[in-house]
Amino acid sequence: MARKIILDTDPGIDDAMAIVFAEAHSGVELKAITTVYGNATIENATHNALYLKQYFGLSADIVQGTDKPLQRNPVGPTVVVHGEKGFGDMPVPDVLEATVDGRPAYQYIIDSLKQEPKEITLVAVGPLTNLALALQAEPAIVDWVKEVVIMGGAFGVNGHRGNVTPYAEANIHDDPHAADIVFGASWPVTVIGLDVTEESFYTRPYLDKLRDDAGDVGQFIWDVSRYYLAFYSEYVGMQACHVHDPSAIAYVIEPELFTTRKGPIRVVTEGPAIGHTIQKFDNRSHHYDEWEIASPQNVAVTVNSERLLEIYRQALIEFDLRLTADK
Amino acid sequence: MARKIILDTDPGIDDAMAIVFAEAHSGVELKAITTVYGNATIENATHNALYLKQYFGLSADIVQGTDKPLQRNPVGPTVVVHGEKGFGDMPVPDVLEATVDGRPAYQYIIDSLKQEPKEITLVAVGPLTNLALALQAEPAIVDWVKEVVIMGGAFGVNGHRGNVTPYAEANIHDDPHAADIVFGASWPVTVIGLDVTEESFYTRPYLDKLRDDAGDVGQFIWDVSRYYLAFYSEYVGMQACHVHDPSAIAYVIEPELFTTRKGPIRVVTEGPAIGHTIQKFDNRSHHYDEWEIASPQNVAVTVNSERLLEIYRQALIEFDLRLTADK
Repeated sequence: MARKIILDTDPGIDDAMAIVFAEAHSGVELKAITTVYGNATIENATHNALYLKQYFGLSADIVQGTDKPLQRNPVGPTVVVHGEKGFGDMPVPDVLEATVDGRPAYQYIIDSLKQEPKEITLVAVGPLTNLALALQAEPAIVDWVKEVVIMGGAFGVNGHRGNVTPYAEANIHDDPHAADIVFGASWPVTVIGLDVTEESFYTRPYLDKLRDDAGDVGQFIWDVSRYYLAFYSEYVGMQACHVHDPSAIAYVIEPELFTTRKGPIRVVTEGPAIGHTIQKFDNRSHHYDEWEIASPQNVAVTVNSERLLEIYRQALIEFDLRLTADK
Repeated sequence: MARKIILDTDPGIDDAMAIVFAEAHSGVELKAITTVYGNATIENATHNALYLKQYFGLSADIVQGTDKPLQRNPVGPTVVVHGEKGFGDMPVPDVLEATVDGRPAYQYIIDSLKQEPKEITLVAVGPLTNLALALQAEPAIVDWVKEVVIMGGAFGVNGHRGNVTPYAEANIHDDPHAADIVFGASWPVTVIGLDVTEESFYTRPYLDKLRDDAGDVGQFIWDVSRYYLAFYSEYVGMQACHVHDPSAIAYVIEPELFTTRKGPIRVVTEGPAIGHTIQKFDNRSHHYDEWEIASPQNVAVTVNSERLLEIYRQALIEFDLRLTADK
């Protein structure tokens, strides 16, 4: 049976790659896309989500979320990675058909979880502000959610420590206070951080082949990834991009792709290490221990990258066949 | 030629073990002991230093330092580790002969470095407040010092992450703001953290044999370590204690005992990870990087523990022979 998800996202190039993956794979039912500032402004993020809904005929609700972090000064869109408006330099036409749900994202999340308790998995691949707002407005959602899957953070595993700062990943850096609330809550969270997402690569040949084999869907992924690949080429020095947001969808589809370790997580909210995620994963006792108040959560530490990329590829090919058949 | 050192210390049991080591080894000239709050109150720390000066006939000046951290609320003495007054339950009689230098420690440090530029190594094995105060009062000391060696911090190497909190070592946790100043300054610092000190062990048999072979000196080390060993037995579950502060002296004597890695260090000064030390040791570039303003420093990552313990043992045996001959 397909896992029902609400995807909280800031599209964003790899967000688009994750949205398409979620819609494409039969193991996922994409109930809604809730948007958040981050890779782009909230207006551009929502516009991009609406565009995807219209372009791919998604049945998912599109719900606009918050435009700023809980407490910190906003970092602003990562233009160098995702372009001026979130989809690199790919033109995103006006959207005529698709419209947004009227509620703010946090309220939509609360309402949905309440309506279908233990049925919905929250997958968050942007700053965690909407989830934190939902927790603050209705703490009972911790018991209504099925599972929470987050792309964010970096725990130093496999040498992966940070991307926007030496010790912080972008989503968590964008709103560290929200992340500390979301990780600390007593709901079951699995964190898919740079520790694993930087171990998987969409290479240029992989994306070329996807374009060749997956019709319009493959072409879209190829088009939207050009700007992203140029960033990786110039700033990271590699002819590939990491599999960030789609890895969270992959975890929903097949958790066995990853191994995890368990323990409470805290987030640094001030100073040079702002956004640094720290998990306590041993049982050593300490005189002072502010991890004790946080719930034990799962952090992904290894990934079967080869299989992940094959699942992604197959899902998109099948999605394209469905779309073609529907025409 | 012996390396001239000022030892900034909060005696403290392992501090005493380090002071005795510095005095014992012919490769070190212990010019002064500057005291700081930490393992004990400043009054008890200074008293304990004066006691050691009298008991072992040290020529070192004893200079009292500050009684509190720069900004944070004081943590207070670690009574469970070092006892009510710093030397466990070992009685420390009144000191009749030895007296303190009248200057505050930071001023003594400035005056000494100015008087003998490039001759003196600062070895700090307590909270780094005196060193930070010295830097604030006279920034030029960065050019006058020969080297700075610090026991403190934990960088996650070899799985060593913290002792007083899951991610902070006691000295840095006591004054993270001072530590960030000291690590950041443009003087050459080598940090001997838990990464290596927790890899070396004074076992009970080792200390028994030291008592048997190193006369009054060995007996003193044995006596002062009883309370410490009881702490390790009860709270850490091992019949040994780590070689914390003496490892900094060992580095001065024989740097080759350690391998190090280079890079700027920042310290978390707020929140659950307060006192967490973070080194950037790769060349990856980041959009935001607050490590760039700090000087590259050395962090010890491996130790030749067997040889360190043998050097310690030999030094104390020879020290005892000298003391006996002097009588």
